[in-house]
Amino acid sequence: MLTLKHLPVSSFCENIAYLNRFCNAYKTDDIHSLVKIEIHGGVKTIYAFLQVVDDESIVAPDELALNNEAFKLINLPEGAKVSISLSPAPQSIRSIARKIAGNILTSAEYSAIVNDIVSKRYSNMDIASFLVASGSFMLAPEVLSLTEAMVGDRIIRWNNEDIVVDCHCLGGVPGNKTDIIVAAIVAAYGLPMPKTASHSLTSCAGVADTMSVLANVDVDEKELHRLVEENRGAIVSYNNLDICPANKLIGQVERQIGITQQEHIAASILAIKMAAGVSHLLIDIPVGEKSRIRNTNEAMRLRKLMEYVGDMLSIQIDVVITDGSEPIGNGIGAAFEARDIIKVLKNAHDAPQDLLEKSLFLAGRVLEFDPKLRGGQGYHTAKDILESGQALEAMNKIIKAQGKAPQPKIGKFTRDICANMSGVVEAIDNTQINKIGVLAGASQYNGAGIDLFKKVGDSVEQGEPLYRIYACNSTDFAFANSIVDADCGYEIRSEENNDIG
Amino acid sequence: MLTLKHLPVSSFCENIAYLNRFCNAYKTDDIHSLVKIEIHGGVKTIYAFLQVVDDESIVAPDELALNNEAFKLINLPEGAKVSISLSPAPQSIRSIARKIAGNILTSAEYSAIVNDIVSKRYSNMDIASFLVASGSFMLAPEVLSLTEAMVGDRIIRWNNEDIVVDCHCLGGVPGNKTDIIVAAIVAAYGLPMPKTASHSLTSCAGVADTMSVLANVDVDEKELHRLVEENRGAIVSYNNLDICPANKLIGQVERQIGITQQEHIAASILAIKMAAGVSHLLIDIPVGEKSRIRNTNEAMRLRKLMEYVGDMLSIQIDVVITDGSEPIGNGIGAAFEARDIIKVLKNAHDAPQDLLEKSLFLAGRVLEFDPKLRGGQGYHTAKDILESGQALEAMNKIIKAQGKAPQPKIGKFTRDICANMSGVVEAIDNTQINKIGVLAGASQYNGAGIDLFKKVGDSVEQGEPLYRIYACNSTDFAFANSIVDADCGYEIRSEENNDIG
Repeated sequence: MLTLKHLPVSSFCENIAYLNRFCNAYKTDDIHSLVKIEIHGGVKTIYAFLQVVDDESIVAPDELALNNEAFKLINLPEGAKVSISLSPAPQSIRSIARKIAGNILTSAEYSAIVNDIVSKRYSNMDIASFLVASGSFMLAPEVLSLTEAMVGDRIIRWNNEDIVVDCHCLGGVPGNKTDIIVAAIVAAYGLPMPKTASHSLTSCAGVADTMSVLANVDVDEKELHRLVEENRGAIVSYNNLDICPANKLIGQVERQIGITQQEHIAASILAIKMAAGVSHLLIDIPVGEKSRIRNTNEAMRLRKLMEYVGDMLSIQIDVVITDGSEPIGNGIGAAFEARDIIKVLKNAHDAPQDLLEKSLFLAGRVLEFDPKLRGGQGYHTAKDILESGQALEAMNKIIKAQGKAPQPKIGKFTRDICANMSGVVEAIDNTQINKIGVLAGASQYNGAGIDLFKKVGDSVEQGEPLYRIYACNSTDFAFANSIVDADCGYEIRSEENNDIG
Repeated sequence: MLTLKHLPVSSFCENIAYLNRFCNAYKTDDIHSLVKIEIHGGVKTIYAFLQVVDDESIVAPDELALNNEAFKLINLPEGAKVSISLSPAPQSIRSIARKIAGNILTSAEYSAIVNDIVSKRYSNMDIASFLVASGSFMLAPEVLSLTEAMVGDRIIRWNNEDIVVDCHCLGGVPGNKTDIIVAAIVAAYGLPMPKTASHSLTSCAGVADTMSVLANVDVDEKELHRLVEENRGAIVSYNNLDICPANKLIGQVERQIGITQQEHIAASILAIKMAAGVSHLLIDIPVGEKSRIRNTNEAMRLRKLMEYVGDMLSIQIDVVITDGSEPIGNGIGAAFEARDIIKVLKNAHDAPQDLLEKSLFLAGRVLEFDPKLRGGQGYHTAKDILESGQALEAMNKIIKAQGKAPQPKIGKFTRDICANMSGVVEAIDNTQINKIGVLAGASQYNGAGIDLFKKVGDSVEQGEPLYRIYACNSTDFAFANSIVDADCGYEIRSEENNDIG
């Protein structure tokens, strides 16, 4: 038996157990031979990866130390007695080898894989292997199996509602936070919309980040039910709802390896929505050369895939393919996006028109899920609701009900990026702008990000600011600056050339 | 600037950097946003993964701690000043996405991937992604590109030799250490054979482990040259030769994820042999239902692949496909295998005949690489050399030159596994026997392993011992016992049944 110790190290969702090299319970002469272990404490068994430590003050020979992730999971106090045993490789790893060999995996195999991921029997390496193996070739029924496996047993039920709607925009387009405006319009109309949002993984801000600038987004299922009952709408992080536990683990690895396959995007989105109890779902696929989905062929393939899986899961799916060629709105980063959203809801004269129009378009599609609404009336209904101020009113109620958030601190380190020639903005590179924003700290700080002054088609004079970078500390500011000079993400076409051409 | 500290943690070849959550140089509020960083110290830059620590005694806000792997690499003393910056994802990750999408990668792409692996810009997750993505579909020219990339610039030159031979047996068959006997015979004959061997990854013992029971195997290139000059033969670990640095990193991940593709086996073997300067190579592919290569189709595919790559690299390759249906020899685990080898070399009456015959067969094929030897004379020449005692003499010289090793401590915890019925041994499951041996500690301790008393075709009485397990400590002994009762790896056919049949 070993004595449990907590080593306060955060390690990307990976459970790590630390043993002294001269551990009393397990001989660890040779790092080569190390393996995954099972840790038995009380009634609970957890899985962890072993690392070997040569410092008794970190972990003594009669101790077992766990990092933050593992210590939280084992849920025992320091000093508790635990034992360890070797953990054989999970059986489901064999399915990964089968997938590599080109086989079609069964529903039971996907279920076993997802269960092993959730119970932490997979290392991040194993998860990466699964993602790459399945990503290269997966039939639509396999995506269905994976989706069902990710949902598991936990589905939020809305017994008092006939339909429960939601709207999800695929990532890759900076600033694109139409969902929050859509939720306000739909709630004002009266359809129940428990919008489940996620935090940023690779972008400057996720919908949950942007909403967190306005209100608390961490609620549990009971609270979510209360919010939707009171106001018809809520915009919350799915994290605290305790649904789709595999999703976070898979997402972390996807982010780390920088590879995301359409099949996994489809499974991830639909699993969360299914688990959230959504019956009618609008999916927005923005397409742009520098967006996540790069052309209409890809978008069409993803649309068909999501329609198939949605049908099989009895979720009504409406997929729209939209223009993702440049950022939507002006603000990029949670605080700046939230500002744009409020401008739109307030019908402010300087509200970004692209954000406004796209939100009305999407809200109209969601409203048309209502059998009582006459076909073709969605857009106009949405417009009425926005222009009459009902959407703003609904949003204020939602914010109050979720708990108003304090004002975010806007980054003090700023720099204006200016046009190096006069002309017309020809293109804005979503990928580069996102990268600059992320380096400026936007995915860490709500007050960091980018504010765009010019969009595609705008005229600019040489030296005129194109956008402003906001960072919250000097390190992030330096990171952002280190790449912006080589490529600021804007392409400007000289007016003269245009005349000649 | 941060102050460098060494945190003595071993982490499976992964570079890890630890920052305090309130680090002065980098804000780390949110574990989600953590990334790979570059650490700049002196003239050197290394790459590492960040973990966040909440304990100042482990790492203070003005410190940067590195684990064993990273600290060794940065090669600076504790207290040195280092700075950090964000490390963008390596460009070559894009090639992995291209591979997933079914593309054929160029030689330049493989080269970039391997360089990024060697410079530690790839995490283990990234390496796993590469292995799985490429493993599912790789043309022979791609395997060639990967092999060449793994070789890199470091090739050992044998300017005084016309031909340099080696022999490599694929794994999966416990006890199969013919290579060492082959080396002794070939050295006695006079062909130069610098046998480069590896330590165990997933088996009870690698050739380097078994040889290390007899002699020191850790030599550098200069020493290897001296050994071969003096004795024509040497059996050394390739680790200290400073060749094929990618191979170890890739092998670690393969072992962790438990997935090995033929294409990577071929590239790994041929890269090491190419880098070792081998001109003529014999490859033994043992085939068995419970071996690594499970049928002759697989073996044939691997043979063609290795022949193609060998031809393109101008290495003369002779591939033989052999019987891998049961363990070779009686001993499994370094000390027990070394004992068998010495018995064969000494022409002992109880030397395992299968090990002896297979060694002669392989040695004969290697000898036939010699243009001066008449075709068909290899086997008989090898037999003469063995039976006359010249092979033993050559081995004694090799051992003396490399440095005789101390006697290994044979495991004190033993258990005889006995037949549960009388009959004839029908089959021995390589995979299960290997697993029992590994659990008994064979891959950690030279003195742990298994000694087989019965092989396929032998008659046994009920209660008669089939084999003995040796473990060096009670934990390993318990591990081995925990699986042996469910499946001891032996299949016994009752003699009566046979009469009826």
